[in-house]
Amino acid sequence: VRVRTNQPQVELQNTDKQVSSGTHTHTHQLDVSVGAASYTDSSDDETSPRDKQQKNSKGNGDFCIKNIKQADFGRREIEIAEQEMPALMALRKRAQGEKPLAGAKVVGCTHITAQTAVLMETLSALGAQCRWAACNIYSTQNEVAAALAEGGFSVFAWKGESEDDFWWCIDRCVNVEGWQPNMILDDGGDLTHWIYKKYPNMFKKIKGIVEESVTGVHRLYQLSKAGKLCVPAMNVNDSVTKQKFDNLYCCREAITPTSFLLKRTTDVMFGGKQVVVCGYGEVGKGCCAALKAMGSIVYVTEIDPICALQACMDGFRLVKLNEVIRQVDIVITCTGNKNVVVRENLDRMKNGCIVCNMGHSNTEIDVASLRTPELTWERVRSQVDHVIWPDGKRIVLLAEGRLLNLSCSTVPTFVLSITATTQALALIELYNAPEGRYKQDVYLLPKKMDEYVASLHLPTFDAHLTELTDEQAKYLGLNKNGPFKPNYYR
Amino acid sequence: VRVRTNQPQVELQNTDKQVSSGTHTHTHQLDVSVGAASYTDSSDDETSPRDKQQKNSKGNGDFCIKNIKQADFGRREIEIAEQEMPALMALRKRAQGEKPLAGAKVVGCTHITAQTAVLMETLSALGAQCRWAACNIYSTQNEVAAALAEGGFSVFAWKGESEDDFWWCIDRCVNVEGWQPNMILDDGGDLTHWIYKKYPNMFKKIKGIVEESVTGVHRLYQLSKAGKLCVPAMNVNDSVTKQKFDNLYCCREAITPTSFLLKRTTDVMFGGKQVVVCGYGEVGKGCCAALKAMGSIVYVTEIDPICALQACMDGFRLVKLNEVIRQVDIVITCTGNKNVVVRENLDRMKNGCIVCNMGHSNTEIDVASLRTPELTWERVRSQVDHVIWPDGKRIVLLAEGRLLNLSCSTVPTFVLSITATTQALALIELYNAPEGRYKQDVYLLPKKMDEYVASLHLPTFDAHLTELTDEQAKYLGLNKNGPFKPNYYR
Amino acid sequence: VRVRTNQPQVELQNTDKQVSSGTHTHTHQLDVSVGAASYTDSSDDETSPRDKQQKNSKGNGDFCIKNIKQADFGRREIEIAEQEMPALMALRKRAQGEKPLAGAKVVGCTHITAQTAVLMETLSALGAQCRWAACNIYSTQNEVAAALAEGGFSVFAWKGESEDDFWWCIDRCVNVEGWQPNMILDDGGDLTHWIYKKYPNMFKKIKGIVEESVTGVHRLYQLSKAGKLCVPAMNVNDSVTKQKFDNLYCCREAITPTSFLLKRTTDVMFGGKQVVVCGYGEVGKGCCAALKAMGSIVYVTEIDPICALQACMDGFRLVKLNEVIRQVDIVITCTGNKNVVVRENLDRMKNGCIVCNMGHSNTEIDVASLRTPELTWERVRSQVDHVIWPDGKRIVLLAEGRLLNLSCSTVPTFVLSITATTQALALIELYNAPEGRYKQDVYLLPKKMDEYVASLHLPTFDAHLTELTDEQAKYLGLNKNGPFKPNYYR
Amino acid sequence: VRVRTNQPQVELQNTDKQVSSGTHTHTHQLDVSVGAASYTDSSDDETSPRDKQQKNSKGNGDFCIKNIKQADFGRREIEIAEQEMPALMALRKRAQGEKPLAGAKVVGCTHITAQTAVLMETLSALGAQCRWAACNIYSTQNEVAAALAEGGFSVFAWKGESEDDFWWCIDRCVNVEGWQPNMILDDGGDLTHWIYKKYPNMFKKIKGIVEESVTGVHRLYQLSKAGKLCVPAMNVNDSVTKQKFDNLYCCREAITPTSFLLKRTTDVMFGGKQVVVCGYGEVGKGCCAALKAMGSIVYVTEIDPICALQACMDGFRLVKLNEVIRQVDIVITCTGNKNVVVRENLDRMKNGCIVCNMGHSNTEIDVASLRTPELTWERVRSQVDHVIWPDGKRIVLLAEGRLLNLSCSTVPTFVLSITATTQALALIELYNAPEGRYKQDVYLLPKKMDEYVASLHLPTFDAHLTELTDEQAKYLGLNKNGPFKPNYYR
Repeated sequence: VRVRTNQPQVELQNTDKQVSSGTHTHTHQLDVSVGAASYTDSSDDETSPRDKQQKNSKGNGDFCIKNIKQADFGRREIEIAEQEMPALMALRKRAQGEKPLAGAKVVGCTHITAQTAVLMETLSALGAQCRWAACNIYSTQNEVAAALAEGGFSVFAWKGESEDDFWWCIDRCVNVEGWQPNMILDDGGDLTHWIYKKYPNMFKKIKGIVEESVTGVHRLYQLSKAGKLCVPAMNVNDSVTKQKFDNLYCCREAITPTSFLLKRTTDVMFGGKQVVVCGYGEVGKGCCAALKAMGSIVYVTEIDPICALQACMDGFRLVKLNEVIRQVDIVITCTGNKNVVVRENLDRMKNGCIVCNMGHSNTEIDVASLRTPELTWERVRSQVDHVIWPDGKRIVLLAEGRLLNLSCSTVPTFVLSITATTQALALIELYNAPEGRYKQDVYLLPKKMDEYVASLHLPTFDAHLTELTDEQAKYLGLNKNGPFKPNYYR
Repeated sequence: VRVRTNQPQVELQNTDKQVSSGTHTHTHQLDVSVGAASYTDSSDDETSPRDKQQKNSKGNGDFCIKNIKQADFGRREIEIAEQEMPALMALRKRAQGEKPLAGAKVVGCTHITAQTAVLMETLSALGAQCRWAACNIYSTQNEVAAALAEGGFSVFAWKGESEDDFWWCIDRCVNVEGWQPNMILDDGGDLTHWIYKKYPNMFKKIKGIVEESVTGVHRLYQLSKAGKLCVPAMNVNDSVTKQKFDNLYCCREAITPTSFLLKRTTDVMFGGKQVVVCGYGEVGKGCCAALKAMGSIVYVTEIDPICALQACMDGFRLVKLNEVIRQVDIVITCTGNKNVVVRENLDRMKNGCIVCNMGHSNTEIDVASLRTPELTWERVRSQVDHVIWPDGKRIVLLAEGRLLNLSCSTVPTFVLSITATTQALALIELYNAPEGRYKQDVYLLPKKMDEYVASLHLPTFDAHLTELTDEQAKYLGLNKNGPFKPNYYR
Repeated sequence: VRVRTNQPQVELQNTDKQVSSGTHTHTHQLDVSVGAASYTDSSDDETSPRDKQQKNSKGNGDFCIKNIKQADFGRREIEIAEQEMPALMALRKRAQGEKPLAGAKVVGCTHITAQTAVLMETLSALGAQCRWAACNIYSTQNEVAAALAEGGFSVFAWKGESEDDFWWCIDRCVNVEGWQPNMILDDGGDLTHWIYKKYPNMFKKIKGIVEESVTGVHRLYQLSKAGKLCVPAMNVNDSVTKQKFDNLYCCREAITPTSFLLKRTTDVMFGGKQVVVCGYGEVGKGCCAALKAMGSIVYVTEIDPICALQACMDGFRLVKLNEVIRQVDIVITCTGNKNVVVRENLDRMKNGCIVCNMGHSNTEIDVASLRTPELTWERVRSQVDHVIWPDGKRIVLLAEGRLLNLSCSTVPTFVLSITATTQALALIELYNAPEGRYKQDVYLLPKKMDEYVASLHLPTFDAHLTELTDEQAKYLGLNKNGPFKPNYYR
Repeated sequence: VRVRTNQPQVELQNTDKQVSSGTHTHTHQLDVSVGAASYTDSSDDETSPRDKQQKNSKGNGDFCIKNIKQADFGRREIEIAEQEMPALMALRKRAQGEKPLAGAKVVGCTHITAQTAVLMETLSALGAQCRWAACNIYSTQNEVAAALAEGGFSVFAWKGESEDDFWWCIDRCVNVEGWQPNMILDDGGDLTHWIYKKYPNMFKKIKGIVEESVTGVHRLYQLSKAGKLCVPAMNVNDSVTKQKFDNLYCCREAITPTSFLLKRTTDVMFGGKQVVVCGYGEVGKGCCAALKAMGSIVYVTEIDPICALQACMDGFRLVKLNEVIRQVDIVITCTGNKNVVVRENLDRMKNGCIVCNMGHSNTEIDVASLRTPELTWERVRSQVDHVIWPDGKRIVLLAEGRLLNLSCSTVPTFVLSITATTQALALIELYNAPEGRYKQDVYLLPKKMDEYVASLHLPTFDAHLTELTDEQAKYLGLNKNGPFKPNYYR
């Protein structure tokens, strides 16, 4: 299973034959094993969850997870997440009278984290029934899954699924006697794909698809183009609110863990160090900003002229790797590409050069090329190897070229809250829309609902919005309650 | 003539009857009288250019400008601008063999600045004939217009046109014997509007419209929706490259003049000062960032929940004006709205409070309400008035509530260069596109041309782009020459 | 007259024979002609003030300034400054009962600006008589001098004094019948030097010297070492409060005008530009920080290893000028040294390279070397020349290598307020100290008074200091009223 | 054992009777257990090192450490540290011919870390014999001590000494047959104090003391004042180089772990959160800067008006705790004081408020007051407790009010390298100084040696220093080889 960036990937498009290419990470997420998931590490046994008899405390067994005993830990994680997701909590409150999702049968396939749990429990409070699988084989927080199962949700997910497990779990969500979904909430398009492939008749009852990921949205547009999309779909990824906050805040939040990590593993001071960062996408931008702030001299390599120009404008010299490889103190890859740093580059680095990967795949550094007899490997710390050349030169390789293991996520909960709220509203909109409002096409959330998502997040900040006077509304040609910007405004 | 922000304005949409609403500023531009335009100040005479006989040194008189004698000054400004617009210069070089605009007759209506002149002379080098008017009655750099006229361009524009002049100039561009435009380059939609209204038949020969402004693009989409768009149009405003660089760099560049200005007029130190900024659009964001960097405590007011939420996330307390009006040291408006600060607010401010407007209109502060007998006005410096209450309280009012007069533009030339290059490529694309590629609709520049615009700007930075290996291209599913991102990628 | 940085300068030390070396600028001050001094520019006549009959409106003629008619303008400037100097205003209030400087006869020699005027009027309110000269031939704000003269102060100063005028003014302050100073307030040591040289007997009545500048303090320590200091002296320059705020805030405030200036004169965008900054003292640090923030790639040259190391740590490559001269887009000097950029360097620069001086002297760029027949000079804007090589290469030289003419000061009024308050307290302390507390030596202001200076500035910020409980004071071993830090704490 | 900030503490001064107050941390060091010291955690046995027979592989047993078997791990840590301490390595190289410390017998008492080991091995390479103890009972890296013992150094130190162990170790360094120290290298003054108290006669052979810490320097000045200092002492703490880099870079480096820690333990997003930081010393400044950069709204409390004023100028509202306690989301203490947050404050906090301590002592939050029957404690994660009020309100208390446990140091190795180099040079200077150059007083390192320390660090950065020409040196009145700044320049 490859974990990918938001690079377009052609092979994805013929997914019919490629069961193994079915899992995708969320854009921007440096490491999917988030938060305090360490409870499970020591107590894990080796039996596959599929082989276990499972029942929650009320005797319900319609789920498949790692270990129902972790439910209490998971509940605490969910409660902590609730604190940071005020908008969903507000939706729950408003739903006490009306149940806008009464009768909705939602099948979902997303990362299973505390934040998702808050969403699922909100959908439930709004009247929906839910069945859920994971969209990534590694990203499930087992104790959260346990808390959901204990709470009565039919969850099929655990950390470390095999490819076969992955599709089995999805199938268990969908293929159930006496229950048929009428709404899909997808992240990556695998669930949608599975239904298309195995149960196309289900679409007769499905009112709509809400899709979160770049990849999934891409697939939907392709279906639409090909005339094969048979229900309305809502593209949540490109909602204005989400995009604004993604772009503005993800980079900022990424700086801390990036720099902390390098510091912890290597003890180096960054001031004055020469660093080359390969790739100037979201992750690369975050790394470069962090390094610049800490006083490093940063070089960038890029293949895309638009990103390259941004690097230039941001004050980084754009080079080819070989131009600086002899002089740099640190090499960081974050391209999503393969063989970005190869043996030839490694041979030319100077003594003590640190090499690490911050990108999504583990293919960026050709580590295999370092497994040759003339090179000695010496493990000096956890996740830190010295690779020693015959002449005594040492390269400091971090995490054997894999993504460094973070103990915290870099997707701010806030963005997850925005996303989850948008997903909930998109489900409500599609579920309740009068016949004919949406056709078999891909839609963006109406501007006004976008503004509503934002307004639901304001009370957290004790923020007081100003209201237009009648005179001002007239002057600006606006309705006093919004929308305040045209649809094409970004 | 009102100068507006990119707030949507309903009245704009029925432009047929509203000749007077025809001029619009460029988004983000704090002050349209840019650069070194001061040559003209002292030598100005009072005769209207329309009443003068005008001829350039070659005897050509097909233009109408302020003063042909300023051509030399203008030429120097153009030469300076050329240094910062390498992409257009590169296009000229490549055009030495082929003339992709041979036969093109372009009528244009934009700000007439040194940067525009570089664009026009590039179009000319590519084979086009050009006739040009100004899209704003104040923004013409007279000496640049002179240099263009001297160089043989038919330019009709001067600084300080009346409404009548404005439309007269546009008409002179279009309504000329023996010459009919086949391409339109517009900024604000007034030229397009004029042709629609007066010479609808011209569209038969017109191959396309290239439109730069938010407002103009909005009009085009409306025409398209109404089924009235009769030629293909290219929306240059929303090209990826332009958007990326606008958002990233305009705020950064706006900080300097903003803070300089406040410093120069008031000598205050910003560290520790409490400031309320009304409006968190582009200008407001720039002001707030500048003030925060200088150590001010900043409060924000907003009407739009999305912008409001951004203010919160950026660390500014969102308040209603009245909640902080008694305690703040500085009040800055940048809403594009009217009567944002009214007499009631002014009455409650503390002694020494500074009040100024950074927005586009001069209606934000209700200055008229301060012209009452019990208040004394005292001019203490250029652009600085003390308004004195009966109890001795003084309010420091800057520029009588108008936009402070800057001596430099805040639109970085770089963004103008990106824009101008995109315009040129859009003209080439529309002019040369095979029959049927574009219909009577509004288009975005193809992704690949967007990337081409960026790549044309890289040599300035001595930037070296990395090329994909065959193996990498295959892995990523990309063509080695791009496009490198999907169309919907922002 | 050379204007100098805080570089140590050996010649200064034998000042006896060097009357002409007597003027020094204030450290950190980019341009001594501050604020709104433009009133005087147009109305200046050519008669020397020494040749004019001068009287204020009350018939008093014991002063010599440019033009008494500007008093009203000056008064407004003083009133504006008062707003930013709350601590001195607080001292005045407290002085309404007691007059701690009653009987003090202060002779002063400082920059004559609105801020100094607030200090002088405070000393007067505290009971002192004052006579004043300028410590710099260019830095006098004529209209402020007028307001002081109109207010009854014996001021001898104008903008643009000759060397001879300079010493004549000092002499007029000191050498007056029936009045002998008993306190000295000096900035640069010229006044002290003059009295030592001409009127050594005056020291019998003088209770102490308060000295503000690096240079003056240096001279005092030398006198002390040589056993020639005959009265106590207070080193105000090294007071903790002043130092802390100087270092922290001057750089920050310098960024704005620096970047504004370059922007205004050249229209360049700084993002991605390669810049070499010669000298990494205070001014250099400010420039580099500004440029880095705007996205430039900055190189630094230095001679001092400590400053060099700081540059490295701050993320700037430390180079020799020749290593980068061919590739940079901008060269900025701020060394205080001479011939830092010479013809050989200029010959190697690339076309369009901008060269300017932000340092104190005008000797840093060897402009004379560009006045040769083969080079053509072309004035393209105010303060901007193109120097054109025979092969067409153009160098953009700003302000002919002199300091660019700013219209605002870069010393924040806040630092001036700290300084002025410290000076006032130092005068009070020395004047009222019991016999024997201070000997013929150089002293720092007692820590507790330093803290008092700070506390006088807190109310401006509506700041609420926490008080120690008895238990906490005991735990920390501190007096509840301070001092809160040991003397050696910085 | 109390761990202290650099707050002055009166009790320290009568150290004769207070054996128990003898250990002090290094200023700025958030956590003394640095780096990768985790090797020792699992293999620790419970026998006291004092009760063990210890021998290294060569049979030498003149040391007392935790576990000699860890020597290999320690050697790797030392090798890693060598990479970041180029100046000491350069000193070693230069010492290959001359041995400036030949005959020196250095007794040292410092933190025993990899960096110290690099220093000790350098002293040894320069010709010195060394015996060493730890200056803090917790800060010893056991595996580094093991590597030193294996290398033949007489080291007496382990992590987790008792008070009694602490003094026993010091005594073992000093009280040894047939060896008497002639140089002292101290950090905190405990070693010096011990010799004064127990072996005053030793001072007859001692040539000088090099002292590193604020506290130790303070003690030396007191001895000097009291006429009891019987050998010259070098104050390394106040060397210009060290001070410059401490102030500039420690805050910057502290930001990363601070923010990472809060993020990891609580998952909160900081944007828009209201935070009160108690104390605006070094740690407080770092916290506030970090929080501001992440978009928090920060309030500050302070007792010292100078620090208070800095907070104001930096844009933080200075408040008393009670003024904001009801509204803040996070409370952070970093005062070094006790009972800064008491039960009364905790009672008024809002639900979900996070409370943590970043200061040095664990007395800042009155945690004991929360151990009352009506409050429920719930451990939700490692280091995170929810304290629940009867009405359901939850306070999130981190690390029970102790300093959060970091896995990386915040003293950049670079500062340690500067310090260690300065210490080495100070030892060389005192050891080799001709009779009479230094008296029984406290000295600062000569300016020129300060500059030498800096220059030894430049090659790491591939930095090229510019040399003055003869003409320039003359113009500036400087020797071409320095010193380049006067002694009093900071």
